[in-house]
Amino acid sequence: MTTLHYLTIAEAGDLLRSHQISPVELTRGFLDRIEQADHQLHAYITVTGDMALKEARTHEAEMLRGEYRGPLHGVPVALKDLYATQGILTTAHSRLLAEWIPDEDATAVARLREAGTVLLGKLSMWEFAGGLDLQGPFPVARNPWNPDYAPGGSSSGSGVAVAAGLCMGSLGSDTGGSIRGPASLCGIVGLKPTYGRVSRFGVIPLSWSLDHCGPMTWTVEDAALMLQAIAGYDPKDPTSSKAPVPNYSQALKEDIRGLVVGIPRHYFFRADGVDGETLEAVETAIKVLEERGAKTKVVEIPSIEQAATVRQIIWASEVYSYHEANNEARRQDYGPRFRDRMTMGAFYTAADYIQALRWREILRREFQQVLEGVDVLATPTSAQPAGLLEQPPFTEDTVSGRRPTFTGPFNTTGLPAISVCCGFTSRELPIGLQIVGRPFDEPTILRVAHSYEKATPWREKRPSI
Amino acid sequence: MTTLHYLTIAEAGDLLRSHQISPVELTRGFLDRIEQADHQLHAYITVTGDMALKEARTHEAEMLRGEYRGPLHGVPVALKDLYATQGILTTAHSRLLAEWIPDEDATAVARLREAGTVLLGKLSMWEFAGGLDLQGPFPVARNPWNPDYAPGGSSSGSGVAVAAGLCMGSLGSDTGGSIRGPASLCGIVGLKPTYGRVSRFGVIPLSWSLDHCGPMTWTVEDAALMLQAIAGYDPKDPTSSKAPVPNYSQALKEDIRGLVVGIPRHYFFRADGVDGETLEAVETAIKVLEERGAKTKVVEIPSIEQAATVRQIIWASEVYSYHEANNEARRQDYGPRFRDRMTMGAFYTAADYIQALRWREILRREFQQVLEGVDVLATPTSAQPAGLLEQPPFTEDTVSGRRPTFTGPFNTTGLPAISVCCGFTSRELPIGLQIVGRPFDEPTILRVAHSYEKATPWREKRPSI
Repeated sequence: MTTLHYLTIAEAGDLLRSHQISPVELTRGFLDRIEQADHQLHAYITVTGDMALKEARTHEAEMLRGEYRGPLHGVPVALKDLYATQGILTTAHSRLLAEWIPDEDATAVARLREAGTVLLGKLSMWEFAGGLDLQGPFPVARNPWNPDYAPGGSSSGSGVAVAAGLCMGSLGSDTGGSIRGPASLCGIVGLKPTYGRVSRFGVIPLSWSLDHCGPMTWTVEDAALMLQAIAGYDPKDPTSSKAPVPNYSQALKEDIRGLVVGIPRHYFFRADGVDGETLEAVETAIKVLEERGAKTKVVEIPSIEQAATVRQIIWASEVYSYHEANNEARRQDYGPRFRDRMTMGAFYTAADYIQALRWREILRREFQQVLEGVDVLATPTSAQPAGLLEQPPFTEDTVSGRRPTFTGPFNTTGLPAISVCCGFTSRELPIGLQIVGRPFDEPTILRVAHSYEKATPWREKRPSI
Repeated sequence: MTTLHYLTIAEAGDLLRSHQISPVELTRGFLDRIEQADHQLHAYITVTGDMALKEARTHEAEMLRGEYRGPLHGVPVALKDLYATQGILTTAHSRLLAEWIPDEDATAVARLREAGTVLLGKLSMWEFAGGLDLQGPFPVARNPWNPDYAPGGSSSGSGVAVAAGLCMGSLGSDTGGSIRGPASLCGIVGLKPTYGRVSRFGVIPLSWSLDHCGPMTWTVEDAALMLQAIAGYDPKDPTSSKAPVPNYSQALKEDIRGLVVGIPRHYFFRADGVDGETLEAVETAIKVLEERGAKTKVVEIPSIEQAATVRQIIWASEVYSYHEANNEARRQDYGPRFRDRMTMGAFYTAADYIQALRWREILRREFQQVLEGVDVLATPTSAQPAGLLEQPPFTEDTVSGRRPTFTGPFNTTGLPAISVCCGFTSRELPIGLQIVGRPFDEPTILRVAHSYEKATPWREKRPSI
């Protein structure tokens, strides 16, 4: 048996169901692991400790009584610290919320609880999911593959905790790549579902039309299990969709023979600033998909060069609109990076925003058209692997449009996208492959990512921390 | 038989189908009527003349061959001059488009042609549907009940032409009340369908998220016939809905026993500036509905006082965004009222617009909640009857939020609404009753309006011009 804290959710689920391991034993194992490793990594803002053990005991009793809730029953998870948790500090890594204790769980949190998970704690992130604050109210999370390096953001703690075995799975949020970026830089799986697939009720907003909630896990199989628990309509979230929720684990059982993978070579592979080792790893990954029976086809999205500007205007306008009042009342309580980026939104006019919405519609239609001819798209997730923590992290540059972003277009268009590890650089830093699908076709992107994962050795490797 | 030009579409349809009247005879009759009366009313910018007669001859031949297209076959209609018509001048009553000849029909126009209508011409309107220009490039339409009075706007010519028997039915467009306002002031029926119900492809936009296309007719029965022809999904309009299109004429056959009519007394009946005779007529109309078997219930929309501001910000921002380039290049070619109102949009920030969208969502939900407890709402259509043409028309004041508007909230929320004549003032000017329904429930508002219309004498009265 592998080290307890490096079990996958699926593996632990089997052991839990067959009573070979107990929720309390597993939870205690993770609390010990956090105690041992997190002082170097700072993935957690809040560790629930005794509260987690109490939950674990309740679930243990249930399971002993034969009341089995499903594959997440007894599984210890953690949450990016912008998911509201009843009675537990929820900070968004901000001075403004440094003492906020919500009255109610976010819907995704309530659904995870319903599924029987144990909550280990709340995870570090960029301030309000929008700007890394090195001098913020809580420490900054570090990359477990090399703590001198950044883990990406904004769901930094969620990426670190999963990669370093500080929880079995986590929830992140993704407005321009905040799930997929840290997943790629930490070598884990990050899934940004279709816009509307997962309720955002109780999740502190960044940019309401771009924000997405989703799981971060070690394997694709685990991502499918977590998505299953949180997906589906929520009357409390007016943007949530009534589209039926399929069986995601079932989808992994099919192979990918005959699927057509679109390769948008022109921007996602050729933009200035794309790392050579990343490209090489992604090209090799595409060959693996071909060996597994997929066909590939070069595709083009004519207006992709506009995507960064479109997203920047929508992003900054919506962020500013949310923070406008606090920006006047408590401007000094924001960190400098988030404040600067948010304040850009004050300078866009309504006409700018409307023009951006118009361009967004054009992009949406161009991707729709491309996805009529292919089943999924494959691209690098991040243009660069992790950079040194002391330098402004690369992923933050991409969010502000100063460097190419391969994740952002799928926030603008709302399409589902998953990042899966596809190798390591010569410095032993992970590289991510992104698979993008049609609206609500999470089953296909999960299937492709799973097929790739099974055929490659990357899941065997763990950070040595 | 009544005067030819005062036949309803349904009456004419029967005569056409049974070959008691021919499309050519009918078209010629309307062209004569336009010739005789329109120099006093200025409903038309363009009269198609020989082109209409040629169409009528084609339809006549078809009908003689037994090729019957349905209840609009051979019916002469006219269009607000912002519907693109292939090969026919389309001006939006503006100097900027005073010579524009489109290559393609708007979808609604193509559908009316497909249904066999004959196009008599293009109708006067406020400049770009947004501001009356007394010194504009074309004359200003006058109210047929009294040519010193305004017909309302912006679909002024559409209201006048139907009321004065210058066409059998027309299409208008409605961004804040531009179908229902002139319908009420001209004593006809005006239907603003649900947002997405009728394609807007080929219709010059004013404010894309508030614009609606719909029919203006003498009777509710006729409105149902015209809506049937133009409703339904259009791949050329990304905002058009795939909701199935029911049989609207069928809906008129049911009575209204047991239907619950919500009366939002607090704003729609008590706002400052509501005319006393209007209120009296609407109260009497509600009693008629009760006599016909409907129940009534007082309802309240808590945030209705915000509606005018919300709509003003959305309206001006979207109008400015559309006209921004022309405003710089050809500002002198806009009339002063439209220019002033459009320019207000330059001063709203993206955050203002986003806040307005947020309030819009609140309003939408409040109306939704109210409409869970009642089948329709009944209100006055316009707070005031027609004013003198030389004074700034009252309806223009309402659009800019300076006076209460009872039509605007249903552009903001996208709900379907119909105006039907419910009496006359002591000056012999018409008064309108507005019936509002649930999304895509045009059948019920048509049914209620039709039931009211059948029980009252107003359809017998015609302008004496």
